[in-house]
Order: sequence, then C-alpha cells, then structure tokens
Amino acid sequence: MVQNRPPHGRNGPKQRPRGEERAGPPAHRRGGGGGAEPRRFPGAPAGAVWLYGTHAVAAALKNPARLFRRLVITAEAQAALAAECPLPWPIHPEISPRDKIDQILGARPGSGIVHQGIALLADQLTAPALLDALARPGPVLVLDQIFDPRNVGALMRTAQAFGACAIIAQDRNAPEETGALAKAASGALETMPLLRITNIARALVVLKSANVWVVGLDGQAQTKLRGESFAGRRVALVLGNEGEGMRRLTRETCDEICALAMPGEMESLNVSAAGAVALYELTKSG
Amino acid sequence: MVQNRPPHGRNGPKQRPRGEERAGPPAHRRGGGGGAEPRRFPGAPAGAVWLYGTHAVAAALKNPARLFRRLVITAEAQAALAAECPLPWPIHPEISPRDKIDQILGARPGSGIVHQGIALLADQLTAPALLDALARPGPVLVLDQIFDPRNVGALMRTAQAFGACAIIAQDRNAPEETGALAKAASGALETMPLLRITNIARALVVLKSANVWVVGLDGQAQTKLRGESFAGRRVALVLGNEGEGMRRLTRETCDEICALAMPGEMESLNVSAAGAVALYELTKSG
Repeated sequence: MVQNRPPHGRNGPKQRPRGEERAGPPAHRRGGGGGAEPRRFPGAPAGAVWLYGTHAVAAALKNPARLFRRLVITAEAQAALAAECPLPWPIHPEISPRDKIDQILGARPGSGIVHQGIALLADQLTAPALLDALARPGPVLVLDQIFDPRNVGALMRTAQAFGACAIIAQDRNAPEETGALAKAASGALETMPLLRITNIARALVVLKSANVWVVGLDGQAQTKLRGESFAGRRVALVLGNEGEGMRRLTRETCDEICALAMPGEMESLNVSAAGAVALYELTKSG
Repeated sequence: MVQNRPPHGRNGPKQRPRGEERAGPPAHRRGGGGGAEPRRFPGAPAGAVWLYGTHAVAAALKNPARLFRRLVITAEAQAALAAECPLPWPIHPEISPRDKIDQILGARPGSGIVHQGIALLADQLTAPALLDALARPGPVLVLDQIFDPRNVGALMRTAQAFGACAIIAQDRNAPEETGALAKAASGALETMPLLRITNIARALVVLKSANVWVVGLDGQAQTKLRGESFAGRRVALVLGNEGEGMRRLTRETCDEICALAMPGEMESLNVSAAGAVALYELTKSG
C-alpha cells in the first residue's frame, strides 16, 4: 500500500546529509561518560528536535509551520503513518530497521521512548510572544515547576481540548525531551502555543497587566474553584508540581488561590488530571 | 543511611529460591522466537506479579494483604524506597545492579518500563466479588475496551482521589502488564479494588439489580453530565476507549448516556483526563 522509496531519494531544501555522523554533535548531552559509552539521549542539530510516534509525527507533517530534515521509518510503520497523514508526505522517508531508530533516538531500557517505528527530525517551532498569544480566546495554563515532558504534553492535549489560548512553562526542558512531550501531546504541540519562560512570576505580572485574572490551584486553599465566579473574565490557571505545589513567589503573585471541590484529597490526583478538572470547571458551558 | 544486607539473608515464609532460573517458566510469554531471543516480557511464577518503581513498590510493601517473594533493588535506590516505606521492610532486599533488574523485568528500548532501580515480586491481590465491592461507598468506574495498563493505572489513581468504591475492567490484561498498571496507579492498586470481569454488559446488569444507576460517557450524547441529576443515587460511570468509545452492548445496557459539558471536542481528551473530569462532576461537593 505504501511505496518503498530509496533511502537517498530527492529531498526538500531543508534536507541535510543523512548519515547520523553528519548530523553534528548532540546539542545537549547529559551525564558524563567517555566516547565508548552509548549515547543516552538523542542528538539533534541545534534548533531541531526528534519527534516520534504515529500521532505526533503525523500532526507535525501536517503542520505547515514545520520545517523537516529527516523522516526515518520502518517498512511496517508506513501504512500506520499514511493512515493518519495521507501521502504524499512533505519529506521523503528513509526506510530503516527498528534498532536503527532506537539508536537515533537513544531508546534504551527505562528511557520510556516508544517510537512505533517512526522518527522525524524537524526544526523547533517558534512560540509567539506572551501578549501576542492572548490574541486567541480562552484561558491560559501556567505550569510552575512541572518539568516531566509527559505531564507537560498531556496538559497541552487537555488545554487544547478545553480551548485554552496558550501554555506557559518554565524554560528548563532539554530539547531531547521535546519528543516525549510531543508524543504525550498527541498532536497538540503543533497547534497549542507553548511559551517557555524563565521567570514565571514575571510572566504572571505581564498577564495581570493585560487584565488576565490569575488563579493558582492548591489543595489546601479554603476557596473552591467555581467557573461561575470568573464569568466574563479571562483566567490564567496556575498549576504547581505534584510534590511541592507552586513556589512561594508564584503563589504570591496570583490574584487568588483555589482548591478543587472534591470528596478526597486533591493532592492525590496527578497533575494532568487536576489540570483537566480545573480547566473543565473554568470553561464548562451552560 | 540504608544498611546493605546480604542478598541471601533471612526471609519471610513466602520467600522462594532466588536464582532467576528457579523462578519457573514465565507464566505468559508473547511473540514467538527461539530460545536465543531475549525475553520481551517479564516472567513471574503463576499467581505472582513483578511490580516496579518507588511509589508502587512502597505502597505494596505497606499493604498487609500482599505476600512478597523477592525485592530486588540497586544499592542507590534503597534510600528512595526507605523514604517512602521506612525500614524494616517486610522482605529482605537483594542488592542488584541495574541491568539485572532490566533483565528480570524485560525492560528494553520501547518497553516503557521505568523501574527506578526497584522491583518487587509479589502475589497478585484477590479482588472482591462485584456485589461485595459495593459495601464501600462511592461511585463505580467501569472501563470498556480500555486495556493500556498506563490508562487503567492512571484511572485507578483518579478513582481513589474521587472516592470511588471499585474499578471494573475487562479481564484481558496479561499479568506482566500489572507492573505498568501499578506504576501509573502510584499506590492506588493496593487500596482501590480492581475487578477483572469477562462480560462488562453482564456486570452492568448486576450493578443495576443492586440499584446502581449506570451512566455511559460519550461525546456525541445530547445530555450533558450533571452531578446534581444523580443526587442520592449511586452511579456507575462507564468509559469506552479513545478510538471507538463503548461497545454496542455496553452502551445499550447503560441507563443513560451523557457527554461532558465543554467548549471543545470531548473526544480530543485522553481517556484518563475524561474520567477525571466525569468523576469530578459526579462527586463534587457543594
């Protein structure tokens, strides 16, 4: 059903020489280790990221804002990708055995990388400026101290489902983690602006100056989160991490702090479930 | 801080000979392959399961209903486990290098097994009978065609946070998948009854006979889910899988079908986010 193409076929202008050794040194590498040690994290040229998994790669291929460098895919995975992103693809695929893809992505036991035989090297997306992101309607989701790329990705998917205008997160994830984030986001990375910001408290001040009402979520708060209370106002919802919640300065910059109305302990929810529930409460239609 | 113990120290009565070759053949093995092929899935004696990861193992060790067979842990991971489950542990640990634990669990690239250096072989828990599970208060969560152990585990954690009395799921997961489920459940597997049932529609009939009101969740439904509508009634919430929703017979057995009230498409939420939101709506306190 899907035609096998020669691995060195014609390519778009963004295509680079394909040998992994030609892709340049990994932009970020973690841990020490001499040259003999296998690479633990995938290497991508500066400004590019490896995306993987059927949904994430199909969504990226359909995104006109993306520039593509390499599409590496097993023969078997072609039909699955074509089912989600019909041929012709905007970049010619390199057919490759699965273990070669493992190697490119640094997939190892415990890495949690499930690539489904599909890997795409693409340029990173450029995020809009904070105030520009507010041109879209909907609440803003702000993540304080949430770094697990799977949590960030799951929250992007949820934010998209609830019509948020943007997600703001701290600028601390390594580019290698974008693949895991994109996979959990299941396509939402292509459409939901993700703003990486160094200083969350300062971003909240900017939001407040733009008439956004900043609500922090904290299980200890006395006030229960009620969507009705915010009718007619645009809200930024701030989530802290599972262990420690929001940092002090983040918390103090919020206009108010609320808890979810629920019978059990809000802290026992994982952060992506808590975020989904809070966005539901804020946006539910009559 | 944590004392190293000899790997062959004194052990509880359930302890078995420790060499992996003595643990018997894997109860379930997937895929073909000759003897030379590395094992893809962890082998555990019949009736036992390998649990892994700090939270899941700590919760299991604290569960008096569990019987333990082996605790295999890296020297470095002992402090993290002791922080969540104070010494003495109910079973003596075998200190082991990380790659031995990879091998025991069948952790390979793409397996998604992140064990944090901690693996526990324990007897499977016995689930209560369906009607006995209703002795506890709270709603019932029913999963139709949801097999991904990470989704089932995440939903168990959410069900616990919202005070559900039990989760009902189809009896199709292999025992090897219990580890992934337990890890996503983050301890909830030890306290939230998980009933594995072959015929979901028949289970719904039994629930209805016990005066439980059965509500299926479907994004296409006209009725919006409103907790107030079910005041004073015990509800079973039925979730279908992300691709196809509930099966026809499951759907027809529900008392009613509702959608979440939300601005975007309910289908674009992942199933664990949808489950969290629905349980919130059903249980939120005034």
